[in-house]
Amino acid sequence: MPSRVIAGTALHTPTRGRFEALEDVLILVDAIGRISEILPRDHPRFAEIKAQAERQGNLTELQEGQFLLPGLVDLHIHAPQWPQLGKALDAPLEVWLQRYTFPLESRYADLSFAREVYSALVETLLANGTTTAVYFATIHLEASLALAEICLAKGQRAFVGKVAMDDARQCPDFYRDASASTAVNETRAFIQSVRDRAGEEDPLVHPIITPRFIPSCTDALLEGLGKLAEETGCLVQTHCSASDWESNFVQERFGATDTAVLSQFGLLRENTILAHSNFVTDEDLALIRQKGAAIAHCPLSNFYFANAVFPLRAALDKCVRVGLGSDISAGHSPSVLDGCRHALLASRARHSGIDPHLPPEERGLAGSTISVAEAFWLATVGGGEALGLPIGKFAPGFKFDALVMDLNAHGSNINWLPDLDTIEDVFQKLVLNATRSNIVMTWVNGAVVARSSAAQMRDDQAKQ
Amino acid sequence: MPSRVIAGTALHTPTRGRFEALEDVLILVDAIGRISEILPRDHPRFAEIKAQAERQGNLTELQEGQFLLPGLVDLHIHAPQWPQLGKALDAPLEVWLQRYTFPLESRYADLSFAREVYSALVETLLANGTTTAVYFATIHLEASLALAEICLAKGQRAFVGKVAMDDARQCPDFYRDASASTAVNETRAFIQSVRDRAGEEDPLVHPIITPRFIPSCTDALLEGLGKLAEETGCLVQTHCSASDWESNFVQERFGATDTAVLSQFGLLRENTILAHSNFVTDEDLALIRQKGAAIAHCPLSNFYFANAVFPLRAALDKCVRVGLGSDISAGHSPSVLDGCRHALLASRARHSGIDPHLPPEERGLAGSTISVAEAFWLATVGGGEALGLPIGKFAPGFKFDALVMDLNAHGSNINWLPDLDTIEDVFQKLVLNATRSNIVMTWVNGAVVARSSAAQMRDDQAKQ
Repeated sequence: MPSRVIAGTALHTPTRGRFEALEDVLILVDAIGRISEILPRDHPRFAEIKAQAERQGNLTELQEGQFLLPGLVDLHIHAPQWPQLGKALDAPLEVWLQRYTFPLESRYADLSFAREVYSALVETLLANGTTTAVYFATIHLEASLALAEICLAKGQRAFVGKVAMDDARQCPDFYRDASASTAVNETRAFIQSVRDRAGEEDPLVHPIITPRFIPSCTDALLEGLGKLAEETGCLVQTHCSASDWESNFVQERFGATDTAVLSQFGLLRENTILAHSNFVTDEDLALIRQKGAAIAHCPLSNFYFANAVFPLRAALDKCVRVGLGSDISAGHSPSVLDGCRHALLASRARHSGIDPHLPPEERGLAGSTISVAEAFWLATVGGGEALGLPIGKFAPGFKFDALVMDLNAHGSNINWLPDLDTIEDVFQKLVLNATRSNIVMTWVNGAVVARSSAAQMRDDQAKQ
Repeated sequence: MPSRVIAGTALHTPTRGRFEALEDVLILVDAIGRISEILPRDHPRFAEIKAQAERQGNLTELQEGQFLLPGLVDLHIHAPQWPQLGKALDAPLEVWLQRYTFPLESRYADLSFAREVYSALVETLLANGTTTAVYFATIHLEASLALAEICLAKGQRAFVGKVAMDDARQCPDFYRDASASTAVNETRAFIQSVRDRAGEEDPLVHPIITPRFIPSCTDALLEGLGKLAEETGCLVQTHCSASDWESNFVQERFGATDTAVLSQFGLLRENTILAHSNFVTDEDLALIRQKGAAIAHCPLSNFYFANAVFPLRAALDKCVRVGLGSDISAGHSPSVLDGCRHALLASRARHSGIDPHLPPEERGLAGSTISVAEAFWLATVGGGEALGLPIGKFAPGFKFDALVMDLNAHGSNINWLPDLDTIEDVFQKLVLNATRSNIVMTWVNGAVVARSSAAQMRDDQAKQ
C-alpha cells in the first residue's frame, strides 16, 4: 500500500543529456518517502489504484499546466553568507573575504542570530526548489548544529559541515579554530551530535567534514580530518583549485595540486565534494574519477572570482561526477535553476571565447557547450550521484524529492501555447524561465515541505 | 500643483557608475507625467506639500522596505518571438531561425493571434519592470499596428517597428516583403498610423524604421528606408555586426562593415539603435559615436549566438551610447534586471578569459569589467540616452517612469538586514537578486500600469 500517490506528468533527465517525459503516470510513494512504483496510463491497475488513493485521501493530482520536476540539488552553499547575498560583488576576492565575509561568519558565535538567518535561508531554498543542500556552516559548533536542526525541522535533505580552519597565517584572529586538535575534536563532536539528532536509519540530514580549503588549514588539521573521515565514514567537502592565487599557493606549499594534496591527506574519498575545481589538470580529473569524488561546479561565482571557466565538458566526457553549486554568497542567486542557466552560459563562453578581434578558431575551445538537458541533469541526477544518494530522477527505489511546477502560476514569466509547444519545449521553458513563482509545491522524502506564497494565499482565502 | 506626489526613498545611477540615494524625498509629478520637483526631507515646504497631497488623495507613500527604482529600458525585443521564449536554444542559429523563428513570425498574419500574444507580452514586461520597450514586430502592417495599440492601451512607453526584409536570397518564401517598394510604402503607412494613434504631442508610443538586418534587405530597401528616415524623422533600429557569419556576409557583399554600410544608406542616425554590434571595429565605434547612434547590448543572447563577447568597456570608455536589450527570444529572460546580471557576467568573462590552462595574462582582456552601478546605469539612463528620451533617473524634467520595489514582498529572495546593510547594499541586492515578485508597482509617465500579483491578491481579498 503506497502512503501517497501522485498523478500527473513528470519531466526529468534520467541519464545525462536525455530528456524523458513520464506522461500521465501514477507515482506510488512508500512510507519512507521512496518511489515504489511508477504506473503508466495503460497499466491494468491504474484506475483502481488511483481511485483507491483518492478514497483514502492519499492522492495528489496535478492540475492542467502543472508538471513534476525532480527536486534540485545544490552542492555548495555557504549558509552564514546568506545575509550578504548580492552584496559587495564588485570587490576583489581578498576584500570580499576580509572585509565582508569573515566578519559576517564570525557573528555566528551568536546562536540566536544563527537560528534567525538559517531559518530564513532554508525556507527560501526550499521555496526555490532546493530539496538537497550541501552546506558550509561556520567554525561554531552550536550554530552549525542549529543549521542541521533547522534542516531536520523544515524537512530539507542536507549535508551540514562545521567549518575547520586553523592556520593563523591565512585566517583572521577573530575567526579561526584555536588549534588543529580543537578543530578535529569539535568536528568529531559535531558529527556525533548530528547523527544523534538525525537518527541511524536513512537520515535526512548528514554531517560532512569541512576543511575550508587547503590554505586555511595546517598540515595537522588536514591530517586529522582525513583520519576522522576514515574513522567515521563521514563525507568530506572542501574548495579545490578555485583560483590562480589559491592553486599557486598550494603548489608552492606542497609542490602538488590541490587534488593531489587532498588525496595525500585522505580527504579525496568516495563522494568528497570539491567546490569549483576550475584549475584541475587532466591528472587531477583522472584521480578524482578514480576516487569517486565529485565536483561542485559553481558557474555564477566563477564569473566573479575564478579567473577562468571550469572545463565542464572535459570533466563530463571523462565521466567525472559533477553537479551544480550556487556558491551562496559568492554567487548571488539562491536558485539552482539559475545555476543551470549559468552553467549553460559558462559552457558557451568557453566554447566561443571572448575576443571578437581574434579569428574564430583562436577564440574559444570548440565543443565545450552543454545542452539544456545536460544542465538540468547536473542539477538533479548529477548532484545525486555526487553525493551517492538515490535522488534526482523519478524511478523505483529513488526518493520522492520533487517540485510541482505550475505554468499558470501568478507571477509566471512562462508563456505556454499548448498547440505550439511539445512536452520537451515545456521542459526547456521550465529550465530556462521558471522562477520561484512557478514552484507551487516542494516535496522532500515524500512530504510537502514548501508551498508557494500564491498557493498559501489561496489557502488562507479558503479558510476565511 | 503636482498631480501626484510620491513619498519615499529613490535609488538610481544618475551618471554612469555613480549610485545615488534620494532618501525620504517627495517626488512631485505633473499632469503630463514629468517630475516637476524633488524635495529633500529638510525642504521648508516638505510637510505642507505632503499633507496637501494626502488631503487631495494624490499621495503615494512607500512602506517600510519599499524603494523606488527608475523604470527599466529594454532596447531590443522581438515581440513575435514571445511564444518561444526559452525554447530551442540548443539549436544552432540557422536552425533556430529557419525552423522555429521565421515560421512563428509568419503566423502574425493572423491578427487575433497577434493581439493575444502581444497583450500577454506587454503585460509581462510591465510586471517585470520594463517601462520603455523597443520592439521589432513582424512584416505584417496590421499586427505591428496592434502591438503599438496594445502598448498605448496598457501604458507602456514604446518604439514599435514593422520589420522590413525583402531579399529573396536570405528570407524564406513564406515570410518576406513582396518587394523593396512594398516594404518602404508599408513602413511609411505604419509610421503614419502609429503617429495618428499616439498623437502629436509627447507621444507614449513611437514608430521606428526597422530593416531586419543588412543580409535580409536589398540595396533598394536599405536606400528607401534611409530616405524614409530622413523624410519622417523617425528613429531607426536594426541588427549590426552580430556574428561571424553576418559580419563576413556584409563584408563580402559591400567590402565594408555593417556600421559603414548603414551609414552609407542613411540609416546610421542620431539615436539609431544597433542591436549587438559585437564585431564592430574601433573605426565603427568612432562613427557610431559621431552620428549619435547607440548600441543595444544583449549579453544573454550573445552567449548563445554571438561567437564572442561585445567589447562593452571599450564602447563605454569611448563614450558611445549603450543600453541593454533582452533580445527576446534569442535571450530567454524577459527581465532587464537579468540583463544587468548578464552584462556583468559577460564583462567578467571578457576580463578573465575562459581557459585555465593559459597563463593569466594571456587568458582575458584585463580591465573589461563593469560595476553593478554601471550595469544598472545601462538599464536605465543608458537606455534613455540611446533613445534621446528624458527617462532613466529621478530628476526634474524627467518622466516619472518608476518601479516600487518591495524587499518584503511575498516570494522575495532578498534577505535584508537593516543593521548590516547600507543603502548602497540594498541597491546592489535589488539589482542582483530582485525578481518580478519584488516589483509591486510599475509606473509609466506618472501612471500606475502594473501591480504585482501579490498586491492584486491583497486587493481582491480586501474587496471580498
